[in-house]
Amino acid sequence: MPKQLPEDSVGIVQPQSFRWDAPITLQCGKSLPRYDLVYETYGQLNAARSNAVLVCHALSGNHHAAGYHSADDSKPGWWDTSIGPGKAIDTDRFFVVSLNNLGGCHGSTGPSTQNPETGKPYGPDFPIVTVKDWVISQKALMDFLGIKQWAAVVGGSLGGMQAMQWSIDFPDCVRNAVVIAAAPKLSAQNIAFNEIARKAILLDPDFHGGHFYEKNTYPKTGLILARMLGHITYLSDAAMREKFGRELRDGSISFDFDVEFQVESYLNYQGEVFSKNFDANTYLLMTRALDYFDPAADFNDDLAEALRQAKANFMIMSFTTDWRFSPERSEEIVTALLAAKKSVSYADIDCPQGHDSFLLDVPRYISMFRAYMNAIEVEEN
Amino acid sequence: MPKQLPEDSVGIVQPQSFRWDAPITLQCGKSLPRYDLVYETYGQLNAARSNAVLVCHALSGNHHAAGYHSADDSKPGWWDTSIGPGKAIDTDRFFVVSLNNLGGCHGSTGPSTQNPETGKPYGPDFPIVTVKDWVISQKALMDFLGIKQWAAVVGGSLGGMQAMQWSIDFPDCVRNAVVIAAAPKLSAQNIAFNEIARKAILLDPDFHGGHFYEKNTYPKTGLILARMLGHITYLSDAAMREKFGRELRDGSISFDFDVEFQVESYLNYQGEVFSKNFDANTYLLMTRALDYFDPAADFNDDLAEALRQAKANFMIMSFTTDWRFSPERSEEIVTALLAAKKSVSYADIDCPQGHDSFLLDVPRYISMFRAYMNAIEVEEN
Repeated sequence: MPKQLPEDSVGIVQPQSFRWDAPITLQCGKSLPRYDLVYETYGQLNAARSNAVLVCHALSGNHHAAGYHSADDSKPGWWDTSIGPGKAIDTDRFFVVSLNNLGGCHGSTGPSTQNPETGKPYGPDFPIVTVKDWVISQKALMDFLGIKQWAAVVGGSLGGMQAMQWSIDFPDCVRNAVVIAAAPKLSAQNIAFNEIARKAILLDPDFHGGHFYEKNTYPKTGLILARMLGHITYLSDAAMREKFGRELRDGSISFDFDVEFQVESYLNYQGEVFSKNFDANTYLLMTRALDYFDPAADFNDDLAEALRQAKANFMIMSFTTDWRFSPERSEEIVTALLAAKKSVSYADIDCPQGHDSFLLDVPRYISMFRAYMNAIEVEEN
Repeated sequence: MPKQLPEDSVGIVQPQSFRWDAPITLQCGKSLPRYDLVYETYGQLNAARSNAVLVCHALSGNHHAAGYHSADDSKPGWWDTSIGPGKAIDTDRFFVVSLNNLGGCHGSTGPSTQNPETGKPYGPDFPIVTVKDWVISQKALMDFLGIKQWAAVVGGSLGGMQAMQWSIDFPDCVRNAVVIAAAPKLSAQNIAFNEIARKAILLDPDFHGGHFYEKNTYPKTGLILARMLGHITYLSDAAMREKFGRELRDGSISFDFDVEFQVESYLNYQGEVFSKNFDANTYLLMTRALDYFDPAADFNDDLAEALRQAKANFMIMSFTTDWRFSPERSEEIVTALLAAKKSVSYADIDCPQGHDSFLLDVPRYISMFRAYMNAIEVEEN
């Protein structure tokens, strides 16, 4: 007997697919002959088509942001804490669109997709995609859905960067941009973490230069290491202490190199699970998109000048213990928005969970997020 | 023609070797039939043998702390900024002893040493060593040198932990303990970083379960990844920003996964160099010694109770931007020392370089360090 789904869930959802059946030239200069984007929607598009919200995913996210794929699903979508009836992104008011980005590995065209020119997976020949490319492909999906303007573009981390880029590249298409736990560009330390993760994948003998699909293998070790490393940066030192302390898995020290502390056990488990569900070439692409994100670069490194293009209202949120993209990085965005004379709200949420907070049910965060979203006027017809 | 050595250098130094020719049982319960420790000394032992300072090394350090091995040496020892005539550890006053710890890979008995029982390198059969084991083996060297009491035991990071352990385990043998950029025990986040570094080595196919010596290879990839990761934690975000910013090596984005940003290039270089000069089994041992360090564990997790054993005066130093072992961790030590009614000085040095500061010529740090050391009375005969 299928379980009872929570009342504030969007319920059982079905992924859909959108095909762009013409060549697209990417920022890197290379092109794809066509592409598919897999997406989900939650809530109803109103007659005025004025209540659509685009949700952009972060590094390892996908289109499945809310609800369940079946009644037997053990877990809902990755942002189910924030998307649903009465939630921060209230599906009683909004029509939510969530897609897997180009280059992804959950149904959208990416490195594991068959290259129509060779009949083999693209692998390492899949072109580098950037946040700007994603925005362009998301705009194609928007047009396909008959939406002229997003009530809001919303995202955390790399997702927040897409919301910023949308506001700059398509100012008339975004009424509100909600940018959570993001940064205007990566720091040298951020890039360094990405580089080690990539290196772990690239140097894994099972990577085979990215052509591992044909070898019926995958760079498991590289993916495990990349995910373990990523995970450290998602949690605050305090959150790790609270969650694991220095507790030993078996109560006493065993004097060897086996997994011994709870935190080791947790990271190893997270790494194992991730390695089975994520494509290594996609991981490389996503981290590079992060490295390259720098909307000010086209405007003489002046972020205010870049954001001057925007017509959206902005909501910027950060978390006090986030050391991946610290509050100071969000404040850089706020400062630039103020300099550009934009409408901006900013909340720095005091909570111990670090970067991951944007995915969690942190009461103060959710209530600020909800208040902002609820204030967005949705013209009813 | 050999170059002119700096005037404040200890000059050309020669490593020496000490053999303990009897079985030693380690904390893990395993024993070694005998062991060698390689060490260097700088300055002169006075007639009262009261001016000896023990320098303890950190994770990847060794006995060569100061001076040059030849006039052609491009670089002096790892702590040459602090050891020499007129320096913080003034070799005109002190007789400095610096050794490579048991389990090391620079001359002391360790995993790459031939196991007398098998005629092959110990490899993974080398027993786990702890900070307590190191202190015991350092005590044997002390006895051999005819020293009854150290004027000071001094170290940064893992070296500082050894200074703490000395003060607890051999209270009568330590007049001063100088503990720099250390922590009373590792946090879950610290352990997590170590675990990923170990995992990178353990999962490298060239590790061969630790028996890589016989295969004429070594886990180069694992060591590179471990070192790159370590290096991130040695530098502050600010130091990385100052050093590299987001500068591109070739001026423009190349849209690939090659080394592109200056910070990537730097880390890759550091990793490459390290992988050629460090033993993977030693790296595993050293990180585990860090994980296991917890002097309070034998005293009901009460650090003050542990430190109550000590008779030394303490100097604790930390650096504001050190996020590996933050000032808060040093303050835990200070608080415990105060609770145990010990003599303690504490300086938190405001500087941008992060954990690595303890190795650098940071003026305020060096002057505080020098002032403390100069105040140590050395009874002359």
